[in-house]
Amino acid sequence: MTSSNPRQGSTFQVGLLGHGTVGSAFARLLPEHAERIRLITGSAPELSGIVTRTSGSFDELLERSDLIVELMGGISPAREYVMRAIESGRHVVTANKQLLSRHGEELWQAARTHGVQLRFEGAVAGVVPVIRVIQESLAGARIDRVHGIVNGTTNFILTEMARTGVTFEEALVEAQRLGYAEADPSEDVDGRDAAAKMAILARLAFDTPIHLDQVRYEGIEQIQPEDLEYADELGLQLKLIGTAERIGAGLSVRVHPAFLYPGHPLASVMGPFNAVTVESEEFTEITMSGPGAGGPQTASAVLGDVISAMIPPASTPPTSQQLEIVEDVVSAFYLHLEVADEPGVLAQVARVLADDGVSVKSVVQKGLGEQARLVMVVHAVLESCFAAALEQLSRLEVLRSPPRAIRVLEEEFG
Amino acid sequence: MTSSNPRQGSTFQVGLLGHGTVGSAFARLLPEHAERIRLITGSAPELSGIVTRTSGSFDELLERSDLIVELMGGISPAREYVMRAIESGRHVVTANKQLLSRHGEELWQAARTHGVQLRFEGAVAGVVPVIRVIQESLAGARIDRVHGIVNGTTNFILTEMARTGVTFEEALVEAQRLGYAEADPSEDVDGRDAAAKMAILARLAFDTPIHLDQVRYEGIEQIQPEDLEYADELGLQLKLIGTAERIGAGLSVRVHPAFLYPGHPLASVMGPFNAVTVESEEFTEITMSGPGAGGPQTASAVLGDVISAMIPPASTPPTSQQLEIVEDVVSAFYLHLEVADEPGVLAQVARVLADDGVSVKSVVQKGLGEQARLVMVVHAVLESCFAAALEQLSRLEVLRSPPRAIRVLEEEFG
Repeated sequence: MTSSNPRQGSTFQVGLLGHGTVGSAFARLLPEHAERIRLITGSAPELSGIVTRTSGSFDELLERSDLIVELMGGISPAREYVMRAIESGRHVVTANKQLLSRHGEELWQAARTHGVQLRFEGAVAGVVPVIRVIQESLAGARIDRVHGIVNGTTNFILTEMARTGVTFEEALVEAQRLGYAEADPSEDVDGRDAAAKMAILARLAFDTPIHLDQVRYEGIEQIQPEDLEYADELGLQLKLIGTAERIGAGLSVRVHPAFLYPGHPLASVMGPFNAVTVESEEFTEITMSGPGAGGPQTASAVLGDVISAMIPPASTPPTSQQLEIVEDVVSAFYLHLEVADEPGVLAQVARVLADDGVSVKSVVQKGLGEQARLVMVVHAVLESCFAAALEQLSRLEVLRSPPRAIRVLEEEFG
Repeated sequence: MTSSNPRQGSTFQVGLLGHGTVGSAFARLLPEHAERIRLITGSAPELSGIVTRTSGSFDELLERSDLIVELMGGISPAREYVMRAIESGRHVVTANKQLLSRHGEELWQAARTHGVQLRFEGAVAGVVPVIRVIQESLAGARIDRVHGIVNGTTNFILTEMARTGVTFEEALVEAQRLGYAEADPSEDVDGRDAAAKMAILARLAFDTPIHLDQVRYEGIEQIQPEDLEYADELGLQLKLIGTAERIGAGLSVRVHPAFLYPGHPLASVMGPFNAVTVESEEFTEITMSGPGAGGPQTASAVLGDVISAMIPPASTPPTSQQLEIVEDVVSAFYLHLEVADEPGVLAQVARVLADDGVSVKSVVQKGLGEQARLVMVVHAVLESCFAAALEQLSRLEVLRSPPRAIRVLEEEFG
């Protein structure tokens, strides 16, 4: 089905630079999604080759690619490769925050000059689509402030310290064990990684050139378990917060640990998650959150950029599936019953439920003179079974009013 | 500066249908942002006219417009107008959830045929960019489930019931008083409004045609104050939840009240806010939240769509501002001091702070044998003043170790 002749026919050749965690995840993801992408864009993307620091010829890869995905990281040779790809008319997708926070202006300028797309969603907050939202959805808005938790390593460490009372060093070891921190975590824990990401966000949100060197940053190495204990007493959450905000006619861009009051939209962001809040007088605030790093997640963001580069004008493609509409689904339920306050009622109710396969998870019973309230949460069950049980229940003589049921969403999240 | 000859020169003519809350907010917003948009897109948008159900000629408006913004709502004449705009090669931006959830397929098909953009961010969750993210950022991902709080009226009512213990009817009156519910709130409170929005999200997320009639929905009219009391006891939050999820090879789309465990990303969405969580094995989950309705917010989403239609290929425009980088900003601080446990220490510390304009908000003092810990939160102050105070503090003889300070983000959100 795919043409062996690059840059022609129904395929779209994607050249990959770098084959680390994100690069190899992307190389796996691309063929898995090629057919779906063909339905959306009209052509199937195909990996034209992989070049790393130590293997492969960039010149040859460039020659046979429509688009270059740069996941090498670092400045050299990434900067040269990205520039040469742009200059030869190829779209580029990169997740390289160091490169963009230091040399973004020259690369964006080159992309405009050569009429190609330079996309970089994966550079900030992994799959959380902050770049696209600031650059496109909010293009017309006057943004006043951006707050972000843009480093998953430090958020994991602070969450662990708050949860378990361990020291920074102990939490760091745990983060390394779980793959949330690298062997050399210094750029994460000292705030420099977050500073690079905030430089990029500030550039987009405030239309002002920002170099990484202009971002003040502090890390979390100095945080003591005691600080988190007091935070708990004071009702605060401690996070490593990046801020970019208008101050008068100026702009402040900085990264430092900060306590958040519980109502703050970033206060509930836990573990390795990232989140960004964009504030504006016009629209109040928008918050986006999700997994901030990890090979598959960042690769997913990179793939979204590749697809966007393939179809510049957004359209709603024809439906490609005809999933059947399912009516009977599985739900847990809260069940509220007013019953006669006499012995054996709970047993009677439980038997009716059990007959239809409904099992009780927790019960609260309250006497109320002649009658009692029975409030329970039942485990997830097909709604038709629960409805049948409810029908049976409503016929029980001990029932004093119609039963009331409300669904409970189970915890299924990571 | 603007040409009086439509469809020519450096202006871009935007014809507006409807002049209600959102329409009039959009008509105000567009000229305010015209110059900024010219910097981004190369041409300044200009209102070519306004047509309502009772005034103005649609034919004449269409003739002199490059793009039609449809904010009339309802099916007729919106459906006919949108279709005619598309067929005459104009881009269309709409916020009409009823129209799209019932006639979306024919309109999207027409837009593809005529090579124009039909954008509709404002139709779901106001300024929260769920449409763009699902359609563009996640175009390549296999989505497993979408959960949403997509009706602000009901979320406000449920938040009020939980917070104050009032009945549904009382909370509804309060919502109407504050402008969060319409005079006739039936489509909001019975779940139908949310069902229309979930039909649109499900169509995009699962690439399957979905008509509003295929969405099961229940509202919140039956919820009793007591249910919220028990929820509180059980540690749950009650929300009106829209769900679209794969079940086997099928799809379930439904709206009903549901209890959420506290770890759920939608559990902390309060008041008139909307939020949508998109789940996938590939990227875990992404959550987006923000104000769900309101004229200015929805108008802001509409404006984002207009800009996108003006510049199909996304690029990073040259910087248009040169905001000065501000180094000295205002912060509140947590301050941790280990001091000699002797009389007058707190007074001494407070005096040093006051000398530099730092005022104390709260203090926790703990004796510790010979020494004491003094932990305080101080009100927001210029960081340079706080640094000066810290410098003075560290010279105090009563200090037993260097002071430790961490910033506190104040509650400034709505």
